[in-house]
Amino acid sequence: MTDSVGNVPRTRLSDERIRAARQVIAPVFLNTPLYRCDALERELGCAVSIKLETANPVRSFKGRGTELVASHLSAGEMRSVVCASAGNLGQALAWSGRNRHLGVTVVASRSAPTVKLDRIRSLGAHLELVDGDFEAARRRAAELANEHGLRLLEDSLDIETCEGAATIGLELVESGTSFDAVLIALGGGALATGVGHVLASLAPEVEVITVQPSGAPAMTLSWRRHAVVTTDSADTIADGVAGRFPISAVLEDLLIVADDALLVSEASIVTGMRLLFEHAGLVVEPSAALGVAAILESPDRFAGRHVVTIICGGNVDTAAHRRWVSAL
Amino acid sequence: MTDSVGNVPRTRLSDERIRAARQVIAPVFLNTPLYRCDALERELGCAVSIKLETANPVRSFKGRGTELVASHLSAGEMRSVVCASAGNLGQALAWSGRNRHLGVTVVASRSAPTVKLDRIRSLGAHLELVDGDFEAARRRAAELANEHGLRLLEDSLDIETCEGAATIGLELVESGTSFDAVLIALGGGALATGVGHVLASLAPEVEVITVQPSGAPAMTLSWRRHAVVTTDSADTIADGVAGRFPISAVLEDLLIVADDALLVSEASIVTGMRLLFEHAGLVVEPSAALGVAAILESPDRFAGRHVVTIICGGNVDTAAHRRWVSAL
Repeated sequence: MTDSVGNVPRTRLSDERIRAARQVIAPVFLNTPLYRCDALERELGCAVSIKLETANPVRSFKGRGTELVASHLSAGEMRSVVCASAGNLGQALAWSGRNRHLGVTVVASRSAPTVKLDRIRSLGAHLELVDGDFEAARRRAAELANEHGLRLLEDSLDIETCEGAATIGLELVESGTSFDAVLIALGGGALATGVGHVLASLAPEVEVITVQPSGAPAMTLSWRRHAVVTTDSADTIADGVAGRFPISAVLEDLLIVADDALLVSEASIVTGMRLLFEHAGLVVEPSAALGVAAILESPDRFAGRHVVTIICGGNVDTAAHRRWVSAL
Repeated sequence: MTDSVGNVPRTRLSDERIRAARQVIAPVFLNTPLYRCDALERELGCAVSIKLETANPVRSFKGRGTELVASHLSAGEMRSVVCASAGNLGQALAWSGRNRHLGVTVVASRSAPTVKLDRIRSLGAHLELVDGDFEAARRRAAELANEHGLRLLEDSLDIETCEGAATIGLELVESGTSFDAVLIALGGGALATGVGHVLASLAPEVEVITVQPSGAPAMTLSWRRHAVVTTDSADTIADGVAGRFPISAVLEDLLIVADDALLVSEASIVTGMRLLFEHAGLVVEPSAALGVAAILESPDRFAGRHVVTIICGGNVDTAAHRRWVSAL
């Protein structure tokens, strides 16, 4: 669905700024592996390529965006920043901030995976834990920003987070590989709108499909109804995408760039994690298995096609991972 | 130990040919991730960077070399090739040969990991299994080449296998990262002499350290004695490096480029696999854990230094991996 003027989708993003972003982001986050995975193809009935975003110091794609944020901050007067995080954004911001001597505060839910919280601390950020879920962390981060005059980094709303993610889209387009669809984990929407914008702009023939857990469907329901839908709770193992309050501006972009928005079950996510472990040798967090889960739930839709799935994060508690991949 | 004329180590390799190799090798095998791994550093007491060679269609570095071999073959008359393989070379040759419509025969030991044998078959190669170990497979591959007039690809002896591996060295040198030592798994010697040559040539200040299991020490003993030493048996879980008959020409190169050659215990290899799994989220085969094992056994030697370890392969039976990483 490329609601566009000429080829340019009318989102908040611009191709020019996305290209410029690559000059700012640390190379360790760029040009990540993209490769066909034969062993998965036999299981899934379609050609599957993996875009691997976990082989970097923070084991998720979020460093692409935090590099932009931290770079802008380090050039200005305000050298302290706070964000709410399910765990990956906080780690990435801590990494980017540490390298630039910024003050970084991360607010996270007490129930976030231990491995994510430990790494945020070990990267030198100040970590504040809140009761409640990610939305409680968002409220607290906004309070802290107001009280202490900090830059508030809001994932998916702040354009740098989308532009950073969008550089993945450029790499897909420039890979010279032709593919039919890209499956993108949907949480707040930075990854989906960023990558989706680039595909809509430069490869409009490629289907942009977002995938969210049925247990945390707020943004998908919003996309389907063309209006923000919030939910009272989120219940999913995919902690990285368990938001409940979609951001209107992000939804507007998502409506422009996404061709479809799928929901998948927890069982499919677990099976996806197991398949990625057994057949691709990849340890992924639940959010990164959403794409494989979508193929599992709609085999006819993808049969014989070439599908890219973005492995967006690999921060998962070892014991939980072992339980999940051994369960079936 | 850069036994060199000017800066050029007098091995069988040449910088010029290694640079040219990069124009031939499929991009999917090149420019692999190189990143600092903080979580491992706390465990190991030194700065550790990972050069990750597993995020490609054959999950090992061997594709770099087989791309060169297959490219040369596809330009000539002889379009069939046979190799002995512990599993990774065979997979890589099958992949490179399939893309160029070559006939590929792989001879492997019946005791090679099932996952490796299955993937060789699924990539369309003819697989012949032999009783005995890797050395039995080498003899049988030579017989087949003679009988049927096939090109015999000999790992580490054939210069393409070393040149392919050497491109990893170029990437390390060109990364702009400064490091003190590189730990390289030692089997037949292609990886060690290839990467070692480039470091000796372009970054002679970096220590080149090979690591082999104590249970399969033939090449290391040969390096130490400056003469080929064979062993009667090999007993290690690191199936990828379990040769017993070092090749003289490869040893000569290794004597020029390696600064030290370490042996490690099976227990350290297992601990290395577990640390890489728990702290880096990486599923690696035993050979790929040799570098971490070496740090574990000589913490004082590496304390406070910046060490690169090449994660050379990730083809491991899931059940065996689970057993190993759960064992301690």
